[in-house]
Amino acid sequence: MQFHEAPRFPQGFACASRHIGLKPEGKDLALFVSEVEATAAAMFTRNQFPGAPVILGRETMRAGRLRGIVVNSKVSNVATGEQGLINARRMAAAAAAEIGCDDDRVLVSSTGVIGRQLPIDVIEMGLHGMTEELRSDPIVGAHGIMTTDTYAKALSVSVGDATITWVAKGSGMIEPNMATMLAYIFTDAALSAETLDGMLRTSVRVSFNMLSVDTDTSTSDTCAIMANGLAGPVDTKAFAEALTEGCIRMTEMLARDGEGATRLLRVTAKRAKTVTDARRVAKSLVNSPLIKTMVHGADPNVGRILMAVGKVFDANVVPAKTSASVNGMEVVRGGARLDFDDAKARAALTTDTVDIVVDLGVGGETATAYGCDLSKGYVDENASYYSS
Amino acid sequence: MQFHEAPRFPQGFACASRHIGLKPEGKDLALFVSEVEATAAAMFTRNQFPGAPVILGRETMRAGRLRGIVVNSKVSNVATGEQGLINARRMAAAAAAEIGCDDDRVLVSSTGVIGRQLPIDVIEMGLHGMTEELRSDPIVGAHGIMTTDTYAKALSVSVGDATITWVAKGSGMIEPNMATMLAYIFTDAALSAETLDGMLRTSVRVSFNMLSVDTDTSTSDTCAIMANGLAGPVDTKAFAEALTEGCIRMTEMLARDGEGATRLLRVTAKRAKTVTDARRVAKSLVNSPLIKTMVHGADPNVGRILMAVGKVFDANVVPAKTSASVNGMEVVRGGARLDFDDAKARAALTTDTVDIVVDLGVGGETATAYGCDLSKGYVDENASYYSS
Repeated sequence: MQFHEAPRFPQGFACASRHIGLKPEGKDLALFVSEVEATAAAMFTRNQFPGAPVILGRETMRAGRLRGIVVNSKVSNVATGEQGLINARRMAAAAAAEIGCDDDRVLVSSTGVIGRQLPIDVIEMGLHGMTEELRSDPIVGAHGIMTTDTYAKALSVSVGDATITWVAKGSGMIEPNMATMLAYIFTDAALSAETLDGMLRTSVRVSFNMLSVDTDTSTSDTCAIMANGLAGPVDTKAFAEALTEGCIRMTEMLARDGEGATRLLRVTAKRAKTVTDARRVAKSLVNSPLIKTMVHGADPNVGRILMAVGKVFDANVVPAKTSASVNGMEVVRGGARLDFDDAKARAALTTDTVDIVVDLGVGGETATAYGCDLSKGYVDENASYYSS
Repeated sequence: MQFHEAPRFPQGFACASRHIGLKPEGKDLALFVSEVEATAAAMFTRNQFPGAPVILGRETMRAGRLRGIVVNSKVSNVATGEQGLINARRMAAAAAAEIGCDDDRVLVSSTGVIGRQLPIDVIEMGLHGMTEELRSDPIVGAHGIMTTDTYAKALSVSVGDATITWVAKGSGMIEPNMATMLAYIFTDAALSAETLDGMLRTSVRVSFNMLSVDTDTSTSDTCAIMANGLAGPVDTKAFAEALTEGCIRMTEMLARDGEGATRLLRVTAKRAKTVTDARRVAKSLVNSPLIKTMVHGADPNVGRILMAVGKVFDANVVPAKTSASVNGMEVVRGGARLDFDDAKARAALTTDTVDIVVDLGVGGETATAYGCDLSKGYVDENASYYSS
């Protein structure tokens, strides 16, 4: 699939972002708008302490219709009680007034520190006049939702006459169980909210839900899709395929830019007895600190691969049938380490993307998980995130 | 409970350790011996790729009787196939010949790199004459089983006329599910193998099985107890209590000395609806990289506590009933962050032991988990462990 060289919006979508003083510097408020009402679907975190925007968002999404999305960074509006919910509603209302639509046609997201009240007055004032600055470049919006991301993330692709555009942020507190922290998808294809919802769930299951930077499931995870129909009907099969492929591509971008990451770690478990086994084994490796540090150091300590497979206690694993490869080089066979050349293995690990494939040899199911190496940069960023 | 100031062995136990050249320097072989046959029980890793010593150990322990334990460091004899099992048997036989007992009265353990064959000739030669060096100081044996531990770990306590002594190693690849990597317990109390087995399971459940340095369950975890009866019968209730308390104390020592650790992190989940909920919530916090880096940086980013409780998706959690404290200072109440003094919270985190207590407010069950902070030292040690 050929993504556009420079990401662009589908017809009728635009965005703006501003620095309104939530952060000392950089964009901290973003607004995404469709010029006509769009059908919409969304998935939110499964964390039991969802933020106020997620609580409100579940309510908003019942109608399956959106005109816009408003997002602030720096403060996540989580663990903020009743006041937090009031502030989230005020943020929706302020964005709706700016766009010129009903309050319940705006999805609100907040990302940043947990447990502080939103400076809602600053946000309300900051939204004034923002629609006059709407641009057709999705990167403008991607800049407005960043926290510790090192660059703004957007993608787009054509499907027939329609376009699909992804704008997302990631970095830390990421084992989405539903999705990455914040991922927004825009299309001008004409699709019902029900169709969108089904397609989104299917795509997220194999992409954002297989992403883990640090096993920590955020309280704010949100993935939403808006379809404004301006490009008319599309081939739904082609659309669904493009949606999944773009979600996987964006998942890889988020993993590669995980906090402190220097490499993308992609783990595939194949020939598993059940898809659950495949998913859990792939996730076990992607989440193992000893696998992540091995990849960081390009140190061919491949016995750790078996350790990480074996710690999924209830998966169907037969040591004698288990083999594994690193970037195509077989390193384990029949549950034992092969006598390979250390220098070659080290070279195989010294690549921007490290692919570990575990062949369980007991069935026909496959799953891939996405993550990154564990570096001192992760410790640096998170030992003083709150205060800095 | 008053542990002895200097750890000592029960009657009839002794140990020796040697440098035989498996590691460039430092002790790498240890032998623990009872002068008479002892009843014994053991628990091993649940990892699905158990090392050869664990496979052999399960067989050995069927009789419930031991004369000694032999342990090498540097090479773990895991993922080594048939040859690995042959080597483990040769190691048992060599130790048995040295002690003067049957091969199946010696428990074998190996710890170190996964996937390399044991230099069995070196070990067989290294064992020659080792019984002539037996000492009554358990620290001598503790030195012989260390890998990345920063100091040798032993404890002892009196129960009536009997003594209980613990010798253990920990550090990395530690979320024992059964136990810490290697923990040996010696007593001169007279107890049947069945009684020992039951007591060991009860104690391990609330101690070593609640320890996690990095979520990575080793392929070699072994916890064994030997009772040689030389002190006669004991009050079993007092013995069981002392056994549990010593196992918890040793668990704390292992957690505090986790790879790169600068603090002991102790998390208690109380008033949970089920003991499973309590255990999973406590473990979720102890394993969360964002909690571990918060503790490392003494950064009062306490919203992460709620995140880590909330990511246990199927636990009984009611946000409005959830509160939490850090070293006795309440920081969260009713699912929301309290407006506390940041400087005080920072001071509360700047202690050698950080106690986080989560009050779930929905039941009567409690569990405590043991871990450590996450520092750059962990990344340093594990990015090049194999090669260094």
